[in-house]
Order: sequence, then C-alpha cells, then structure tokens
Amino acid sequence: MLAELEAHGLLDGQLAQAVGARIAKATTLKEALADAAYVQECAPEKVELKAQIFDEMDGLTADGAVLASSTSIILPSLFTGHMKRRSQAIVVHPLNPPHLIPAVEIVPAPWTSKETIDRAREIVIGIGQKPVLMMKEIDGFLMNRLQGALLEECFRLFEGGYASAEDIDVALKDGLAMRWSFIGPFETAELNAPGGIRDYVNRYDRGYQVIRKDSMHRADWTGKTLDRIEAERRALLPADKIKERQEWRDRKLMELAAFRRR
Amino acid sequence: MLAELEAHGLLDGQLAQAVGARIAKATTLKEALADAAYVQECAPEKVELKAQIFDEMDGLTADGAVLASSTSIILPSLFTGHMKRRSQAIVVHPLNPPHLIPAVEIVPAPWTSKETIDRAREIVIGIGQKPVLMMKEIDGFLMNRLQGALLEECFRLFEGGYASAEDIDVALKDGLAMRWSFIGPFETAELNAPGGIRDYVNRYDRGYQVIRKDSMHRADWTGKTLDRIEAERRALLPADKIKERQEWRDRKLMELAAFRRR
Repeated sequence: MLAELEAHGLLDGQLAQAVGARIAKATTLKEALADAAYVQECAPEKVELKAQIFDEMDGLTADGAVLASSTSIILPSLFTGHMKRRSQAIVVHPLNPPHLIPAVEIVPAPWTSKETIDRAREIVIGIGQKPVLMMKEIDGFLMNRLQGALLEECFRLFEGGYASAEDIDVALKDGLAMRWSFIGPFETAELNAPGGIRDYVNRYDRGYQVIRKDSMHRADWTGKTLDRIEAERRALLPADKIKERQEWRDRKLMELAAFRRR
Repeated sequence: MLAELEAHGLLDGQLAQAVGARIAKATTLKEALADAAYVQECAPEKVELKAQIFDEMDGLTADGAVLASSTSIILPSLFTGHMKRRSQAIVVHPLNPPHLIPAVEIVPAPWTSKETIDRAREIVIGIGQKPVLMMKEIDGFLMNRLQGALLEECFRLFEGGYASAEDIDVALKDGLAMRWSFIGPFETAELNAPGGIRDYVNRYDRGYQVIRKDSMHRADWTGKTLDRIEAERRALLPADKIKERQEWRDRKLMELAAFRRR
C-alpha cells in the first residue's frame, strides 16, 4: 500500500521506503513491548483471547503506556477488569481501512484513567486521525450503533417493498451521505434551518415523530427479505466479482482521501 | 450560481449565459403551462395550496405531460386524488441544493400511471440527476425516513451522555459517511464480508439485534437535551455565523460535486 499512498500524496511528503523502514517485527510479546509508549492490540474478536493478551501485557509494560485494543464490538470492561494496570487499558477502534478513513473511536472502561484517555487522543491526533471520544461504554460503541440505525431503516424500507436496494443506496451515495461526509448529521440539521439546531427541532421534530411510529419493530434481515436482497445484489455484482469490487472501493476511497487532503 | 457552476465545470461544457437564456418567466399559470411536457411545482408545503395548484393545472395541461410536485413531506395521494388527470401527477423531490446533489426521489400516488413514472425517471436521468424510485408512498418518503433514523440514533447517543454532538458528527463525516458517499449502506455491508450481503447478515445480524434492544424508545430531541446540544453548537458556531457557514457548506458541496464529476 505504501507506494500507492505516496503516489496519492497521503504520506505527508515522506517516502514510502522511509515509512516502511520504521516498522520492526518482534517474535515475543516481551520484545515487542519493551519501552513501548503505546500498544495497539489487533487480535481476533474473542473475549477470552483479548483477556489473555491484556493479562500478559500487564506485566510487560511501563507506567504511562497506553494499552489499546482495536476491538469494534467487545466492551473494554469485559477483558481489562482483572489487570493491575487496568487504568492504562482502553479501546481505540479504527475504521477499515485505517490508512484511508480518519475517524477512530476511543472507548474507556469505567476504570480507565483520564491520563490514558488524554494520551490516546493526543496520539491519534498526532498521526493525523480524528478521535471520537465516548464518555462511557455501550454495546456497539458509536460506530456500529450509528451504522446499525441506518441499516435498520434500509432493511425496513426494502422489506416493506418501498424501493429496491440499489435505489436505497443511491438515496445515500448521491444524496444524504454527500452532506454527512463533510458536515455530519447534527451540523447538517443546524444548517437546514435559519435559526440553527433549535429551529430545526421546532420545525421537524413532530414530522419525525410520525415517521418513527412505523419504525418501532425490528425489520427482519433474514428469510425472504435476505433472499430478495441477495438476488438483487447478485444481479448487480456476481459473487466472483466481490473481491475486485472491494479493490475498486479502496481505490475510490484513496482518491476521496487525497481530494479531502487538498 | 451559474457563473460559479461554469467555473467548476458543472454545466456540461455550456456557458452560463446560454443556460440562463433558456429560462423564461410567465405571469399566469396558463401561459407557463402552454405546451409543457413536464411541470415542477415548488409552492410552500401546504396541502390545501398544493391541491388548489394541481386542480388548476388539471385543465391547463396536455395528455402525457408530467405534473410533478417538489414536496418533501406531503403524500401525493393527499392533493392529487380529485384530479381528472391524476394519473399524470407524481412527487419528484430533489434534495437541497438540487444543482449540487444528484439524488431525486420519485414517489407515485396509487393512481399515478406507469407512463408518468417512466417519463419522470427519463427526464431526471436526462438532466444528469439520479432517480430514486419509490414503489408506493409512505410518510417521510425514503429521504426523511433514512435521515430521521440516523438522526434519532445521534440524539439517543447524545441524550445518554455517550459522546458530544461534535464527536458524533466526526464519527460520520470522517468515518461512516465517507463510504456511504460512494457505495451506499447495502453495498458497504456487502463489501464488508467476503461472501457478500448474506455473509454479512449471518455474521452481524445478532450483534445488531443486541444494539437495537436499547433503541426501541424514541429519544427526546427537546428539553434539556436540546438545551445541551444548542449550547454545544453555539460554542462551535455563533448564531450570527450560521448564514456564512451555509455558504461555506454550499461551496464545499460544489467542490465535492466537481471532484465526483472528474
């Protein structure tokens, strides 16, 4: 990836080779953690495995080091509570692919210290990413809750026969998400009413209340709905082209990231 | 706007002056509708007013003309049912600002003819916009339902004290919405699992089920929540700078539209 990132101007003027040369491998955890100021654990999403790794790191790190997990779904309280250094443990969850998407969510456990939170934020900002700080943990963190809420309405509209999956994607990619991709939903709302966010709520809260009434059950993502959506997706993209399309997505994302830098 | 659109290469190679010269004003509805193949009604969002305008248009248009309303919230069945030419009436709702955002939702009433739907789609495609077709009407159409679902989770997370409004916006603009802005949520899901959409649902449906449990009540957008969010917004953006920020948003959107064209 490094050569492509350099070509797109995404290495802050550094050379791919120089960046690559800063990466060193280690064969033991002890060696890897020696003098580490920041650790990013990226093991599979299994709570016992995370607990075991954090337990092992507990005795191998210095005071003040940040012990961060990449988990996107496991609450930090579930695998760090037993540690001596549990005030140094925290979730720092980057979105995929992390070298192209700036947002990183930071999720403290109840016992994570303010120093650890501050240090994690500083480091994330220092490498050009954008921290999103949770005040406390909740299932799904911010990212999966926000993604789940939108997907739920997409499935609901598809399930009810209101539109095709393709057209629902168009509603986002050529519509709503264009604004969200540079101002976010709260600022979008604020700028959609002359008097700002309060004016927006005064104007539209009642309308959203009406809509919301039909959205209180969970949509069925499986069964016939999934059969129909899969049939539609396969007509748009054959199964053996998924990998190719993932590569296309990453190239597009790189162009978008380069555009945003400029 | 035309000069700026020309400068950004958003007039398909035409000159601003030539485009402007194609616009003609009329002082009566009869004059405006003479020989019209397509009508886009843009009156205020009042159902009686829309009903009156469509009633008047009923006797002034030819067979085959599309009678489209710009409404974003009023169901087409509520103001077109009394018409003789009701099979020609339809909602064609562009997003704001329509010259920069391609998506346009098309919402037929139960009596809108297939010819009217097809003709509306063709015209929307012909002017370089992206139609999103609803099979049948529902409160909020697609756009406000999708926007409402995401905003609802944003308010819920803010209300619960999980993150600041600013950080929730960052989660979208520097995170989730970057992907949605060129592939949409269904394709995003499909490309996030090696086996496509079915694989994605098999892997993550249960997790979303857990998250969804806490999201079955409506968040309160008003009261103390609104006080807190407004205080935060005003610290980020003073009330007298909202107009300036709206202009900034439109310039950014123009740059984004130009980038997407390239």
